[in-house]
Amino acid sequence: MNFITFPENQLRTFTHSVFKKMGCSDAHAELATDVLIKSDLRGIDSHGVARLSGYVRLWEKNRINATPNIRIVHETPTTATVDGDGGLGLVVAPFAMKVAIEKAEKYGSGWVAVKNSNHFGIAGYHALMAVEKDMIGISMTNASPLVAPTYANERLLGTNPMCYAFPAGNYPPLIVDMATAAAANGKLEIAQRANKNVPDGWIQDKDGRSSINANELKNGGSLLPLGSDKDHGSHKGYGLSATVDILSAVLSGANYGPWVPPFVSFLEPSSDPVGEGIGHFLGAMRVDGFRPADDFKSHLDNWITRFKSAKTIDPSKKVIIPGEPEYNFEQERKVSGIPIIEVVVKDLNELADKLFLDKL
Amino acid sequence: MNFITFPENQLRTFTHSVFKKMGCSDAHAELATDVLIKSDLRGIDSHGVARLSGYVRLWEKNRINATPNIRIVHETPTTATVDGDGGLGLVVAPFAMKVAIEKAEKYGSGWVAVKNSNHFGIAGYHALMAVEKDMIGISMTNASPLVAPTYANERLLGTNPMCYAFPAGNYPPLIVDMATAAAANGKLEIAQRANKNVPDGWIQDKDGRSSINANELKNGGSLLPLGSDKDHGSHKGYGLSATVDILSAVLSGANYGPWVPPFVSFLEPSSDPVGEGIGHFLGAMRVDGFRPADDFKSHLDNWITRFKSAKTIDPSKKVIIPGEPEYNFEQERKVSGIPIIEVVVKDLNELADKLFLDKL
Repeated sequence: MNFITFPENQLRTFTHSVFKKMGCSDAHAELATDVLIKSDLRGIDSHGVARLSGYVRLWEKNRINATPNIRIVHETPTTATVDGDGGLGLVVAPFAMKVAIEKAEKYGSGWVAVKNSNHFGIAGYHALMAVEKDMIGISMTNASPLVAPTYANERLLGTNPMCYAFPAGNYPPLIVDMATAAAANGKLEIAQRANKNVPDGWIQDKDGRSSINANELKNGGSLLPLGSDKDHGSHKGYGLSATVDILSAVLSGANYGPWVPPFVSFLEPSSDPVGEGIGHFLGAMRVDGFRPADDFKSHLDNWITRFKSAKTIDPSKKVIIPGEPEYNFEQERKVSGIPIIEVVVKDLNELADKLFLDKL
Repeated sequence: MNFITFPENQLRTFTHSVFKKMGCSDAHAELATDVLIKSDLRGIDSHGVARLSGYVRLWEKNRINATPNIRIVHETPTTATVDGDGGLGLVVAPFAMKVAIEKAEKYGSGWVAVKNSNHFGIAGYHALMAVEKDMIGISMTNASPLVAPTYANERLLGTNPMCYAFPAGNYPPLIVDMATAAAANGKLEIAQRANKNVPDGWIQDKDGRSSINANELKNGGSLLPLGSDKDHGSHKGYGLSATVDILSAVLSGANYGPWVPPFVSFLEPSSDPVGEGIGHFLGAMRVDGFRPADDFKSHLDNWITRFKSAKTIDPSKKVIIPGEPEYNFEQERKVSGIPIIEVVVKDLNELADKLFLDKL
């Protein structure tokens, strides 16, 4: 696969101009751009500008509201439900996380369920907003149904990511940001493009048989939960995905399970919805609500140091600290630019043509 | 394997008398008994009276304090750190969950990190305390190091369970209660007793090679995180286990990672601890902090109905709702009694002899 490398700012300017063309305010365009570019900087290429034309197509179908009135519709001192008014999840989720952080500043913790939203980009972006304030950040979202629960031969759940982010002292934040499926859809797309098989345990075909053919998902198959099969704990991956779905949508009033509207514009949302849009769940807890922040950070540093120095099976490999690879990508790409796969560059330039914008 | 079935109350009386012999107050003995018996009722046989003699051995070694002064040592309106004073986790965790529930009653949510505690039984017990109040309950604990993170050839993490519990309307509560390892240690013990192999992907031997021999854990091997290997997402299981460890111990001031004191009395705790005892993390959120509780429950019922009626691969199998098998066990065992494996009955009767109590 061929890549073209762009300076971060060139991609920012381009992405910002696309959101402006959709009718977003300057502030929203800047924020949405920041979420997407952060994903590319951190090496999560599937969730960055590669998705930009997808957002535009949903907007063209009136499934994204570029000028939403995002607001709190229910609250207590430390909990709230936010109505995203059909806006970009890229701006709705940061709004909700701000609410959570403000509540945490006053009362120690804050928790916000979100309905009537759309895809929110990488979960880590929102959780990191809390980490910057010396808080623990939590973010989750439900997503288009692609995953079959244990024993099922139906797609009932999304890859529903969970993210927990913690501030460290001398190390970068420790961030667990993971799809609750055995493999995220992005990894399958990479295999499809390269025409490669995938490991056994990622997908099942339309008859529920385990398959290594990455195309079986398109042919009516399903992704499998983390754990892959019952013997290896797929009921746990299913349980985690269910947790994300319930916190994000049953709690907020969004659509859940098989009713979650698809991200792709060529699939129509359910004609019989059980809620509004997709749902997120965001939380923030002040570290110093439990112990002095410096104590926490020095012990987390000690945790990280110990795990990094663990004895490994293959001496050439080290134990990876969650969030470390993404941090390293970010340091490097901020300097040397962001490589974008050619097929995505082509897609973005077609988008530029359509919107009468300068090409990349 | 042979079982002897006892009425619930007989086991309660026996267990209560053991805790009293340890010097527990009536209230603590009753609570600790309730946690253990609930585990047996719910079919989680590894965490019930089967552990009773283990608690006694730790108490004999002065590693459990039967008369702890459990107290809040740090707090904000919605967060707290509890010092368990070396008490039984079976009483420390319910104390902490009560604090979380009281905070949630006032402010919408409550979150308590616990240090200086011991094994707390089944995570589900504590989370269900919140569910009874129409709250979402969360409970986690770290545990003796048995699990090797991805690439590691060292036991650095416990099977660190996470539990999320939600109140439903017409259905029993939905409870996700899971070890973050591919398989809990209890399942391995069952295979060891039956001299059976375990599935590939549960353990690695002392050299880090995947093994199906259940005894390799005793021979210096390790349990594997949920996901089993990197290809199947073991870094996710490792990340979840790390999350539990950090919330339970780095946040509270308990021991974390390889420093967590072992549950078994024949292994000594680290001579160079990084905190006090083991740690838990408990949370409660009022459902009506987000939407009216009845709306939530009727949508969760709808969620459950939809998943229960899902199309399955094998028509003789249904999609299981998290917590459903345990609920069914409880209904049955409350009526027909609790079957205890003979080797455990023998162990309990030896305990009775030692403590000058009536045998079962």
